[in-house]
Amino acid sequence: MAETQQQQTFNFCSGPAMLPSEVMATAQSEFLNFQKSGISVMEMSHRSPEFQSILESTEKRLRNLMQIPESYRVLFMQGGASLQFSAVPLNLASQHLRAGFLNTGYWSQKAMTEAAKYVDVIEVGSSEGSRFKSLPDVFDVDFNELDYLHITPNETIGGVECWPEFGEIACPIVADMSSCILSRSIDVSQFGVIYAGAQKNIGPAGLGIVIVKDELLVSSELDDDIPRLLNYRTVAKNDSMANTPPTYAIYLANLVFGWLQEQGGVAEIEQKNIKKAEMLYAAIDDSRLIYNDIDISLRSRMNVPFFFHDENLQSAFLEEAQNQGLLNLSGHRSQGGCRASIYNAMPIEGVQSLIEFMKKFENSHV
Amino acid sequence: MAETQQQQTFNFCSGPAMLPSEVMATAQSEFLNFQKSGISVMEMSHRSPEFQSILESTEKRLRNLMQIPESYRVLFMQGGASLQFSAVPLNLASQHLRAGFLNTGYWSQKAMTEAAKYVDVIEVGSSEGSRFKSLPDVFDVDFNELDYLHITPNETIGGVECWPEFGEIACPIVADMSSCILSRSIDVSQFGVIYAGAQKNIGPAGLGIVIVKDELLVSSELDDDIPRLLNYRTVAKNDSMANTPPTYAIYLANLVFGWLQEQGGVAEIEQKNIKKAEMLYAAIDDSRLIYNDIDISLRSRMNVPFFFHDENLQSAFLEEAQNQGLLNLSGHRSQGGCRASIYNAMPIEGVQSLIEFMKKFENSHV
Repeated sequence: MAETQQQQTFNFCSGPAMLPSEVMATAQSEFLNFQKSGISVMEMSHRSPEFQSILESTEKRLRNLMQIPESYRVLFMQGGASLQFSAVPLNLASQHLRAGFLNTGYWSQKAMTEAAKYVDVIEVGSSEGSRFKSLPDVFDVDFNELDYLHITPNETIGGVECWPEFGEIACPIVADMSSCILSRSIDVSQFGVIYAGAQKNIGPAGLGIVIVKDELLVSSELDDDIPRLLNYRTVAKNDSMANTPPTYAIYLANLVFGWLQEQGGVAEIEQKNIKKAEMLYAAIDDSRLIYNDIDISLRSRMNVPFFFHDENLQSAFLEEAQNQGLLNLSGHRSQGGCRASIYNAMPIEGVQSLIEFMKKFENSHV
Repeated sequence: MAETQQQQTFNFCSGPAMLPSEVMATAQSEFLNFQKSGISVMEMSHRSPEFQSILESTEKRLRNLMQIPESYRVLFMQGGASLQFSAVPLNLASQHLRAGFLNTGYWSQKAMTEAAKYVDVIEVGSSEGSRFKSLPDVFDVDFNELDYLHITPNETIGGVECWPEFGEIACPIVADMSSCILSRSIDVSQFGVIYAGAQKNIGPAGLGIVIVKDELLVSSELDDDIPRLLNYRTVAKNDSMANTPPTYAIYLANLVFGWLQEQGGVAEIEQKNIKKAEMLYAAIDDSRLIYNDIDISLRSRMNVPFFFHDENLQSAFLEEAQNQGLLNLSGHRSQGGCRASIYNAMPIEGVQSLIEFMKKFENSHV
């Protein structure tokens, strides 16, 4: 087989997702020898001054990007967001042993199932009636009787982004922001805990970030049961070094955060994300072959699922897209269909290429 | 400041530790574009055929290297060895809610402290009386009344390697092999569970490997309390994909295992490890400046602590070594002194360079 020149690719994977090409180039260039240390970042003691400085920079950049108030701690943990499904109830179950959940789809439900091991799970609202395509119905719940309220503002699989306005409520709000963190400006002070797996908008898989309000770092009713590395107070007290942290993933997160600062920060990237999403949804809505039936006000800016009216066309579409360098457009195995994840690192050219391909495909199949 | 040519360095860090230079070169060369996929391994879906193939290869190579019987499962987890300090009692506490521990030092004690949250902790033996420098005293314990016996065959900080012969005992043996896995031939069938953090002999930090006998994958008394990602049965049932695994760390482990096969496997590397350790201990014993006072039969092949009779010389030694490219020779903060970790990836030339430097330093300081 003859060698062909490497074509430009765009990777629409929902996670682990593409990282900014500038970040990857930097990481490759210093892969063997970080800043003349003679060794790779991944071969460095986590207690070395070099790594300490990386860790401090990572936190500082994240604080700057998200404008995290001083009264919050930033924790670097392992196990992605999924381990937080356990850690949140274990750490936050205080007097009521009861937590509220807004059920907006697959990941909300995963969080609920795990929390139910430790606390009473109360649905404060649900969009299950519309198969998670519309605004959730909200139920009559007394927030005074909840230890916390859990939300999933962006459902990666459903392609739904739902930022409910609860106003002043009597319990802290916990948000799984795995697939939307750093994609838009948010007011951290409205949350008790924000957590995210890294492998979408932050860095490689294996890292989880938890932003937690100081006042929640108190003993929980379940304290005696918390595995040491899941205990927020232990991780905070040890400055995320309660054991050897995933050093290389943190290093890459630091580079991604630096890149994001160079892009102008979260407010700037949010404008680009709005533009990318508008372009892509417009192309889908214009198409005669494909559709997206999520309520327009709830469409995710990060994950854009679409389906063929004639399902028989899907496999040809995916195969031809792959051949054009438009990678990983399959939908989640639980939903079928197609999905384009367009996180911060996806350049506008990637979305343009996808739209052009969609049009070309349509022209040859209608 | 003038640029100088990069000198050869040898990294004696106890972990995260050096990786084989051939592995690092391969990883760098395919960092941006893995096998013409157009993307990095770390940007790949964990469910893609490419990553599935990496995961399968990693397990296959490990099984081959360690001759793991078919009746054992290999689990790829997160949280290093420390998370296993929680996972082991949570998974293995069956009828007795009681576990035995051989207390051989710092890491044994860490495992004991964590297990005590979940089970009664019984010391079956301890070398604390000799400050962990001699064979442990063994106490009279009925193994029939234990759910398992936990050992730490190599104590990374103490520099003690202790492989007790229990013969046929009535409970499964669980071994934390973080710093000795793959460094010597062992008979896996003698163990119920073997676990290890990756960052010494396997790959980068953030990955934990658990080798568990099928028959132990049963409900424990604490089943309802186990965070989902710590449950061995859940991880096994999902083929280590109960959530997004640390894909890049697994990829590097696969390369390290391939490298080890090229070296001739564990039996071959064990001979090299014996030779490296013998050379280094001989140099220490010959020295008038430094000493190692661990019982000779218990000296670790992987972690070689040494101390200066005149402590005032230590900082000059460490500084000059660093300048010579002999990196990370400080002892653990809990012990002081110096320590050379000489895992599989440390070439014999590294040990030779250290010995030459020790002699030169001695000649200029006595």
